[in-house]
Amino acid sequence: MTKDLSTREIAESAKEAASVLAMLDEAEKNKLLLAISSELRLAQTEIEAANSLDLEAAKTSGLSDALIDRLDLSGKRFLSMCDAVLAVTKLPDPVGKEISKVERSDGLLLSKVRTPIGLIAIIYESRPNVTADAAVLCLKAGNCVILRGGKEAFRTNIAIGAAISKALNSCGLPESAVQVISNTDRETVKELAQLDGVVDLIIPRGGEQLIKAVVSMATVPVIKHYKGVCHVYVDKDADHSMAQSIIENGKCQRPGVCNAVETLLVHESIASEFLPELAIQLANKGVELRGCDRSHAICTEMKRATELDWETEYLDLILSVKIVDSLSDAISHINKYGSHHSDCIVTRDQSAAQKFLRAVDSAAVYHNASTRFTDGGEFGLGAEIGISTDKLHARGPMGLEELTTYKYLCFGSGQIRA
Amino acid sequence: MTKDLSTREIAESAKEAASVLAMLDEAEKNKLLLAISSELRLAQTEIEAANSLDLEAAKTSGLSDALIDRLDLSGKRFLSMCDAVLAVTKLPDPVGKEISKVERSDGLLLSKVRTPIGLIAIIYESRPNVTADAAVLCLKAGNCVILRGGKEAFRTNIAIGAAISKALNSCGLPESAVQVISNTDRETVKELAQLDGVVDLIIPRGGEQLIKAVVSMATVPVIKHYKGVCHVYVDKDADHSMAQSIIENGKCQRPGVCNAVETLLVHESIASEFLPELAIQLANKGVELRGCDRSHAICTEMKRATELDWETEYLDLILSVKIVDSLSDAISHINKYGSHHSDCIVTRDQSAAQKFLRAVDSAAVYHNASTRFTDGGEFGLGAEIGISTDKLHARGPMGLEELTTYKYLCFGSGQIRA
Repeated sequence: MTKDLSTREIAESAKEAASVLAMLDEAEKNKLLLAISSELRLAQTEIEAANSLDLEAAKTSGLSDALIDRLDLSGKRFLSMCDAVLAVTKLPDPVGKEISKVERSDGLLLSKVRTPIGLIAIIYESRPNVTADAAVLCLKAGNCVILRGGKEAFRTNIAIGAAISKALNSCGLPESAVQVISNTDRETVKELAQLDGVVDLIIPRGGEQLIKAVVSMATVPVIKHYKGVCHVYVDKDADHSMAQSIIENGKCQRPGVCNAVETLLVHESIASEFLPELAIQLANKGVELRGCDRSHAICTEMKRATELDWETEYLDLILSVKIVDSLSDAISHINKYGSHHSDCIVTRDQSAAQKFLRAVDSAAVYHNASTRFTDGGEFGLGAEIGISTDKLHARGPMGLEELTTYKYLCFGSGQIRA
Repeated sequence: MTKDLSTREIAESAKEAASVLAMLDEAEKNKLLLAISSELRLAQTEIEAANSLDLEAAKTSGLSDALIDRLDLSGKRFLSMCDAVLAVTKLPDPVGKEISKVERSDGLLLSKVRTPIGLIAIIYESRPNVTADAAVLCLKAGNCVILRGGKEAFRTNIAIGAAISKALNSCGLPESAVQVISNTDRETVKELAQLDGVVDLIIPRGGEQLIKAVVSMATVPVIKHYKGVCHVYVDKDADHSMAQSIIENGKCQRPGVCNAVETLLVHESIASEFLPELAIQLANKGVELRGCDRSHAICTEMKRATELDWETEYLDLILSVKIVDSLSDAISHINKYGSHHSDCIVTRDQSAAQKFLRAVDSAAVYHNASTRFTDGGEFGLGAEIGISTDKLHARGPMGLEELTTYKYLCFGSGQIRA
């Protein structure tokens, strides 16, 4: 539907719509979200037909089973996408919320309130449900959005976008508020990333290469949703069975996600006792271990880890294992090789835990709990647009509040500066 | 003092120091700030001598009087720089402050707390007091900092940096925590702006060209401190004498700063009554008016404004004047030509004020008060590193809190995800 317009024209029309969306109140935005959910259900046949074509093309082109699975939006998945849209109507509208207030002695009242960011561009992988999820989260926060999904899902994304357009139209709102970009070449991403003053924020999700490319091209602000190289560090004073449970949960419960554990660090004083038992437990779960030399000396059946393993996000049943001499070494390893996502210490020693929590430079740092909790839903934010691995603006799960900025409203009665 | 190291080496040594600075408590940081203030006073002779050389060179090279004035750090100015350092000891330490807390039903406690950003690079103009101001603000927020000031001030900046190094050293802290870059070529800025994973944030302040250059080169996050094209809009229901007072204050009280007013918008229904009186008032203050065609028809002594005037930050006793047909036109003009800094409506009409406050996309939006209040001190933030004209992370005055990020500390007792 946006085929005849240039990327700049698409973005400028979305930006114009942003001033309309920014003025909607919560009821109007929820009405729009309900309309989107209805239009998606009405378009189920068209969307599933488009998805079938995408799936067929993906199979023909030899896409991996895991990627084909992510692309599939049939049946239950379609319905859960519609439910997710409805769920966002239940989340509180962040726009207009007062963050802080100062009344000066001269009577000038300064109120810091949340406002929409404006126009957000999201670059994502071939998971078509993200098209609806991201659109409604941006809309609920009063933003307009340009969605550029992976090329494998483009027919599905266009069909979802058409349903969203209908809903915008039925609510008397500009259709340009949500734009699904059909052009999936890299040049389009470059253009978007350089539209200063039009695109207010670009969020690249997914592969390392894509994110690096966006960062190097972008002149508009970027919030990266980078890989998750998450660690569990088992301290010398750890409860071993708790550590086993946290490691197994982190590695096996859903290995293909960014908050899964990729590297285990073990204090040298307990390694010879802890590792053999863990190796048996994880072998039973089908996990491949890749150990440092010292780990390998204890569990000779382990593969050897190379330097590359320490920075690899396997997204698979593989765990790298390293023995460290101290808490400080564990912290240094994590800050050096990790992706600043989610990391855990298992220990009974409160002061070791305090040091770890403070010194590990990651979005979420755990004491005695699974890294798998790093998620907008689990953190109580409701839905999330993703997990930021950046430090600026948003860190960790990005929910509705993180999709807003703020401004100062200054209420005076003629005050001037002396 | 950093002459023999490459930019990357300088940054990496600062980044290493960041993990030390991040662990300091408030008392330790205040002790450091007191030491910096003392060392600056002890080095007054050296710093003033360096400043004299900078001033001499600036005069020889024909720098403008305004710029030479900004460069001058003698006498009272030197002492007020030292006082500003002391004042930061009085500001509350933002690090460790809890932003929010969630206790899940499974007992997992999630605490969102402020943490230092890490390593910040600041690129600024030739105002040497910024070297000390920015250093102590960054340090108080637990960050390390690389300071690259304008080349005209480099001798002064190096002398200030030497005093700060002594203070760090006397407190047993790494001198590399604060680095004054003596190399003021653009290549150095480019290198800094591309040190992903080392430099956590780059803040360019000053000229449009410099900021555009940094944005186009940067791969690390940038927060721009851009120009201030601030507006006063006099609505049809304005109190005229209040409007006159707010305009005069905004234009004349300190014309060379970013929160000064550059453009006046007047509702067409009051223009013929309001403008002539204002023109006399401002002429008495030495202000040159540059009007649109309709303004000029009312006040024929005005110069004519061109399209360029609407986006110009004069930083001088010049005011552009435009008559608009409606509140909406005023809002559109501001959002199109302004720099999203500070804008004001003067009106008795509450609903017009509400619409203006909501629709104007600027860091600070005023109803019946001077834009000159947009300032960290006036806003109650204490000192500021500058005024962000960006929307992400920090908007408007950037104080200590805006020099931090946050992380989630997750306290468990073995929780795993179901």
